Amino acid sequence: MSQTPEDAFLTAFHEVAKIGATDAGGVERQAATPEDKQTRDWFVAFARDRGWTTGVDGIGNLFARVPLASANGGEDARVIMAGSHLDSQPKGGRFDGAYGVLAALHAAEQVEAKVRDGEVTATHDIVVVDWFNEEGGRFAPSIMGSSVYAGLMDREEMLEVTDLTGVSVREALTSIDYLGSDDDPGVPPVDSVAGYAEIHIEQGRILEREGLPLGAVDSSWYTQKLDIEVLGEQSHTGATAMGDRHDALVGAAHVILLFQEVCERFPAETLVSSVGQVTVEPNSPIVVNSRVHLVGDLRANEPQIVKDARDWMIEQFREVEQKTALRVVAKDFDIRPNRYYPIEGVELQEKVAADQGKGIRRMQTMAGHDSVAMNTVTPSVMMFIPSEDGVSHCEREFTSDEDMVTGLDALVGVLERMVEGALDGVSYPGSPPAEIS
Amino acid sequence: MSQTPEDAFLTAFHEVAKIGATDAGGVERQAATPEDKQTRDWFVAFARDRGWTTGVDGIGNLFARVPLASANGGEDARVIMAGSHLDSQPKGGRFDGAYGVLAALHAAEQVEAKVRDGEVTATHDIVVVDWFNEEGGRFAPSIMGSSVYAGLMDREEMLEVTDLTGVSVREALTSIDYLGSDDDPGVPPVDSVAGYAEIHIEQGRILEREGLPLGAVDSSWYTQKLDIEVLGEQSHTGATAMGDRHDALVGAAHVILLFQEVCERFPAETLVSSVGQVTVEPNSPIVVNSRVHLVGDLRANEPQIVKDARDWMIEQFREVEQKTALRVVAKDFDIRPNRYYPIEGVELQEKVAADQGKGIRRMQTMAGHDSVAMNTVTPSVMMFIPSEDGVSHCEREFTSDEDMVTGLDALVGVLERMVEGALDGVSYPGSPPAEIS
Repeated sequence: MSQTPEDAFLTAFHEVAKIGATDAGGVERQAATPEDKQTRDWFVAFARDRGWTTGVDGIGNLFARVPLASANGGEDARVIMAGSHLDSQPKGGRFDGAYGVLAALHAAEQVEAKVRDGEVTATHDIVVVDWFNEEGGRFAPSIMGSSVYAGLMDREEMLEVTDLTGVSVREALTSIDYLGSDDDPGVPPVDSVAGYAEIHIEQGRILEREGLPLGAVDSSWYTQKLDIEVLGEQSHTGATAMGDRHDALVGAAHVILLFQEVCERFPAETLVSSVGQVTVEPNSPIVVNSRVHLVGDLRANEPQIVKDARDWMIEQFREVEQKTALRVVAKDFDIRPNRYYPIEGVELQEKVAADQGKGIRRMQTMAGHDSVAMNTVTPSVMMFIPSEDGVSHCEREFTSDEDMVTGLDALVGVLERMVEGALDGVSYPGSPPAEIS
Repeated sequence: MSQTPEDAFLTAFHEVAKIGATDAGGVERQAATPEDKQTRDWFVAFARDRGWTTGVDGIGNLFARVPLASANGGEDARVIMAGSHLDSQPKGGRFDGAYGVLAALHAAEQVEAKVRDGEVTATHDIVVVDWFNEEGGRFAPSIMGSSVYAGLMDREEMLEVTDLTGVSVREALTSIDYLGSDDDPGVPPVDSVAGYAEIHIEQGRILEREGLPLGAVDSSWYTQKLDIEVLGEQSHTGATAMGDRHDALVGAAHVILLFQEVCERFPAETLVSSVGQVTVEPNSPIVVNSRVHLVGDLRANEPQIVKDARDWMIEQFREVEQKTALRVVAKDFDIRPNRYYPIEGVELQEKVAADQGKGIRRMQTMAGHDSVAMNTVTPSVMMFIPSEDGVSHCEREFTSDEDMVTGLDALVGVLERMVEGALDGVSYPGSPPAEIS
C-alpha cells in the first residue's frame, strides 16, 4: 500500500528535521551555512523528482515551478507563490519556516494531482519558494530574501552585509553554490505573481489556549529595533581604582534592564521588548570593557506604544550617561509599520476551515514573516497552526503531527481556490478595520 | 658617535611598539598570534646578535642566556632571571609587559659589559625571559607560562586550554613555531635559578600622584575570580509574551551590576571588582538569550574583604534567581592569596635608588605579575615605574621616555647586585610585616 499524502508529508518533514539536528531536538541551520545548503539540495531534488523546474535569484531565494495552467496551454500563466524559509535561528526549532516550505511543496503536489484529475481548473501555476535568510540571526536584517524580491531592500546592499566573523552574504551564498541571478528563467518576475500563501507555526499560545487548530492572520504588529553603542574606556580589572573605571559593560547592563522595565510602563503584554544581540569589546577576563554594542527590539500592535517606549528609553539612556559617565549612542532601525492582509484572504481561510470542519480564528502576528514583505506586491494569505507553550526560536519548539496535517489540508484548500483565481484583483496590502484607522 | 645605552633602549622600545600597533597608539599582540611571534622573533634576533643562546620550553616561555660567571669559567653557574611578557591584551597598551622584557634585555647587555670591564664580578649568569601568555586575554588563566615554569599549573592541562574560537594553546604555539621542550638546553632548570627581577608599569596612579619615579613592590593583593553561568530559555524577541520569557541576559545584567554594587559595601577602593568576559548564547538580534557566561574579578589587600564580598554576591545571586526565575550558577576559581616579596629585595631596590639619587616608595600590586609566580621558587624583586593616569590594558597607556630610562637604570643596579649574589640564600616568598600577620 502506498503512503497517503499526509503520511508522505510527515515522513518528509521528519526527514528534513534531521538536517543540522541538535541533541536537544532542534536544528542549527543558519542562512547560507552547509546545513542550509543541505536543505536546499533536498528541496531541489524534491522538485526535480516531480519534473518541476527550479531557479535561484540574485539574493539566494530558491523557487520551484509547478506547471498547472501552463501545463494546459496557458503559456502566459501567472503564478500563486507559496512557501516560507528553510534557514533557522542558532539552536532553533525544527518547525519555524521549514514547516511552511514542506507544507507548500506537498500542498502543491496535491493541487497538481487535482488539476490532473480535473477536480481543479487552474488559471495560475504554483511556485513554491524557500526565502533566503528569513531569520536574520547570522545576517541582519531578517526577512532579507523576500524583502529584496519585493523591492523593499536593495539587493547589492544586502549582498554586502556581513556576519559577526566578517563573511558577506555574497561570499556565504557563493560558498554554498546558491547565489543565482534574477535573470534565471526559473525565477518568476514579481509582476507575474498573482498571490502568495504562507503557513507557519503561531509562535504564541493563543491557538493552544483556545483549542483551535487554525489561525487566519489579519495583521502584523508595529516593530522597531534600536542599535545601541555604550562607550567607556578599557582598563585593568585589578589594577584600576574603581573611581577610575569607565566600564561600558555596566552601562550595557542598565540598558538591558531598561528594555524589560519599559514594558511595565504599559498594560501587560501590549508591548514586548528584549535585547537579543550583544557584542562586548575587548571581552577579556581581566579587562574592563570599553565598548558594548546591543540590538534591542520593541513591538506592539499600537504604533504609539512603540514610539512612546522608544522615547522613554532614549531619555533613560541620558540618565544612564549621567550616572555612569559613559556615552550611550542609540539609533532607530528596521522600523516596520503595522501591515494588514487582504480581508478576502482571511475570509477564504475561514471558508476552507468551515468546509473541512476545523475551528479557526482571526489573529495578529507579533513576529515578522516573509508574507509581510510579499503582501506589499501581491494579495497574501498568512496561516497559523498551534505551537506548544507558544515557544519558538528554541530547540523545544513543538507542533503535533495532527496539527501539522490539519494545516497542510487547509493550505491545499486555500491554494486550490487561489490557483482558480479566488484572490485575483484583490487589493493589497489590506486596510485596517474601520475602528482602528 | 654611537648611541648611549639609554638611547639604544628607547630606539628598540619604540621599534618593537610598532609590531601589532593599533591606530589609537596601542598594540594588539595576544598570546601566540602572528604578532606575538614577530616580537618573539625580534627577541631571538636581539639575543643571537649578542652571542646569547636561546631556548623555548614546553609551554612557550622564551629564554636567552647571558654568560657572565660561566664566561669566566664558572661552568655550574646558577642564573638570575629577568624579564616579563611580550603578549598584550586585545587593544592593549605598548608598555605593559614589553617594557619589562626590553628593559631586561638592555640591562643584561649593560651588566655583561660591566662584567667584561671588570666593574662587576658575577657569580651568576643572567637569563632574560619572555613569559608566555601573562595576559590571559586569549587563553585563561593569566600568568600561565611563569606559573607552569614554577610548577603552580600543570603544563599538559594548560596546553589543552582553548580560546573562544576553539584553538588550543598547543595548536596556537605550534602554529607560530614556539612550542619547545623543557629538555631544550637553552631552558634553565628551575633549581638553577638564584633570583628573579621584573620591572613593569604601575597600572595605578600612586607614583604619578606622589611624583616618584620608582616603586618597590612588597606584596600583592588577594584575588579571586567567579565563573558564572546564567541559564534561561531561548525564545522569540517578538512573538513570545513577556510573561513567558526566561531571558538569561536580564539575569546577566543584574549580575554585572552586583559586581559594581558590592564595592560600595566596603571602604572606598579597598575592594575592586568588575566583570571582564561575557559570552551570550545564541546572540541573535531577534532571539531571547538562553545562556550567558560571565567571568568576574574580585581583589582586595585584605583576604576577608574578598571573602565577604564573594559570600554577599552568592546570596544576591539567589535573589536574582527568585526575581527572574533564572538559574545562576557560580564557581570560585583562580584564587590567589596575598604574596610577599622578600624584604631584602625591597631594601636592595631602595639602596640602588638612593645611590642613583632617585625617589622610591614601597607599594602593593593589585594586578598579578609573573614575578608573583616566580617568587614561589626563587627570591624575586618586583619594580614599578609610573603610568600616566594609572590606565593600563588600554591603548592610551603611557609612560614617558624619562621614566622608562630611570627604571632601566634601576634595573641595571639591581641586576648588578643580584649577579654578585646580593639575594643568595634569602628566603622566599617573603613574610607579611608583623602587624599584618
